[in-house]
Amino acid sequence: MKKIRAAIVGYGNIGQYVLEAIQAAPDFEIAGVVRRNGAENKPAELAEIPVVKSIKELDSVDVAVLCTPTRSVEAYAKEILSLGINTVDSYDIHSGIVGLRNELGACAKEHNAVSVISAGWDPGSDSVVRTLLEAIAPKGITYTNFGPGMSMGHTVAVKAIEGVKAALSMTIPTGTGIHRRMVYIELEDGYNYEEVAANIKSDAYFINDETHVIAVPCVDELLDMGHGVNLTRKGVSGKTQNQLFEFNMRINNPALTAQVLICVARASMKQAPGCYTMIEIPLIDLLYGNKIGRAHV
Amino acid sequence: MKKIRAAIVGYGNIGQYVLEAIQAAPDFEIAGVVRRNGAENKPAELAEIPVVKSIKELDSVDVAVLCTPTRSVEAYAKEILSLGINTVDSYDIHSGIVGLRNELGACAKEHNAVSVISAGWDPGSDSVVRTLLEAIAPKGITYTNFGPGMSMGHTVAVKAIEGVKAALSMTIPTGTGIHRRMVYIELEDGYNYEEVAANIKSDAYFINDETHVIAVPCVDELLDMGHGVNLTRKGVSGKTQNQLFEFNMRINNPALTAQVLICVARASMKQAPGCYTMIEIPLIDLLYGNKIGRAHV
Repeated sequence: MKKIRAAIVGYGNIGQYVLEAIQAAPDFEIAGVVRRNGAENKPAELAEIPVVKSIKELDSVDVAVLCTPTRSVEAYAKEILSLGINTVDSYDIHSGIVGLRNELGACAKEHNAVSVISAGWDPGSDSVVRTLLEAIAPKGITYTNFGPGMSMGHTVAVKAIEGVKAALSMTIPTGTGIHRRMVYIELEDGYNYEEVAANIKSDAYFINDETHVIAVPCVDELLDMGHGVNLTRKGVSGKTQNQLFEFNMRINNPALTAQVLICVARASMKQAPGCYTMIEIPLIDLLYGNKIGRAHV
Repeated sequence: MKKIRAAIVGYGNIGQYVLEAIQAAPDFEIAGVVRRNGAENKPAELAEIPVVKSIKELDSVDVAVLCTPTRSVEAYAKEILSLGINTVDSYDIHSGIVGLRNELGACAKEHNAVSVISAGWDPGSDSVVRTLLEAIAPKGITYTNFGPGMSMGHTVAVKAIEGVKAALSMTIPTGTGIHRRMVYIELEDGYNYEEVAANIKSDAYFINDETHVIAVPCVDELLDMGHGVNLTRKGVSGKTQNQLFEFNMRINNPALTAQVLICVARASMKQAPGCYTMIEIPLIDLLYGNKIGRAHV
């Protein structure tokens, strides 16, 4: 069996879990890792793996798994699609998905490649569940309740505020899609807690949510990459009211994102040139192996 | 907008809910109802609707929604696909799905039509959830726990046993995919409870399950078409253990089946000729309206 050769672009937290997911998938092999500083200070787990500064230095890559910050996804994807290499990403700005899909779709078609975007857990696998529930109960309301868990985006936003040495923003669901933010910070010397806390609460990321800021001696002791979702829908099937649905998960956040990326990398090999979100791909294409029979047991 | 013209084939419990789902869907119109005794004793809700004995009597049907017993699905589907009309069904014998798909796939391709099979809630929407969870946590165990709710198949099996005047078989989940069967019966005059109960418990439908048979004066008073599922998976994403997922629903059983059938009838209009299960269809095709933007909110 010819294995799917995948490159990891960006080797941070997600990139490291993507490497594990590639190693665990029987139909994949790692073509190499692309990172800014190339092979310099290679971590131990990459000893046997080509680590380069440009994907052009790697041999016959089928698909690039983009593990860069979300805002860099478009530029990397266009560059790589232009080489005729598939890309997958977990671009997570919900309001930007349609635009990104249009941009990458044109580029992918031009170069006979496939791009699967926004393939993490939200957007991503949660979008699949929401779409299914909307289909089978077309009228009604879906609430996506996140957490309890660490929000990467909110944590980065807190760290950017003056006087914050280290931070952790936890997302706490209070139901009906409303969230409380519990923000834990280490203060820089010479800064005033009241002032820093006020700046956090008035930041765009927090101003609309109930936010509590707590100064702690060591943020690192609180870190846990577990996360969760509770997604509910109450809706109408045909003319029948009160159909109730609920999806829950308790997961390691980057590990799940990485696994979703590998599933869509597999599926990218079976789609016609263009750009897709997960709800546009037959789910069976996410699976490895003899599929029809097994999925219906 | 040209509406999708759907015919209902078989007008029992599911057929009646399918009519409601068609009436509630903005992109559908009812072409007519096909049933054994045609327009004879037409129920009131069909007054304005063509009711015929053969689908050939109906005008420009795009898709036939098969609401016949599962064992008749193959014959009806072949006959209708041969006319170049799409078919959808909720065929529910899990071990027969692969075979049915092969049979109908050949027929559908020959006549340039599309068939979507096994599109109810299990198999059907539950299969979609199971496939997603297997993709995003490839190693692990999924348990599908049904109920509490009435099992149509088991109830029919009890009714076939001598001495049973009326019956209801309830499925009670006891976890890890194991179920208790609570069977409520009205005895025919002159039959002995002990004997009838022993025959039920030794029937193929019940012999492997914990089964309790209870004689009641009136089964009808116990009937409730609510049903439920609790589907769990604990698995591994990449190399990360203990990823936990759970899907729950509490639903009106025939109403949900009917809505799923209408979704896949819609999707059938967008697939290439052939036969599909739900996991082979992009989920976005199940939705009505401006879809990409909405699904990612």
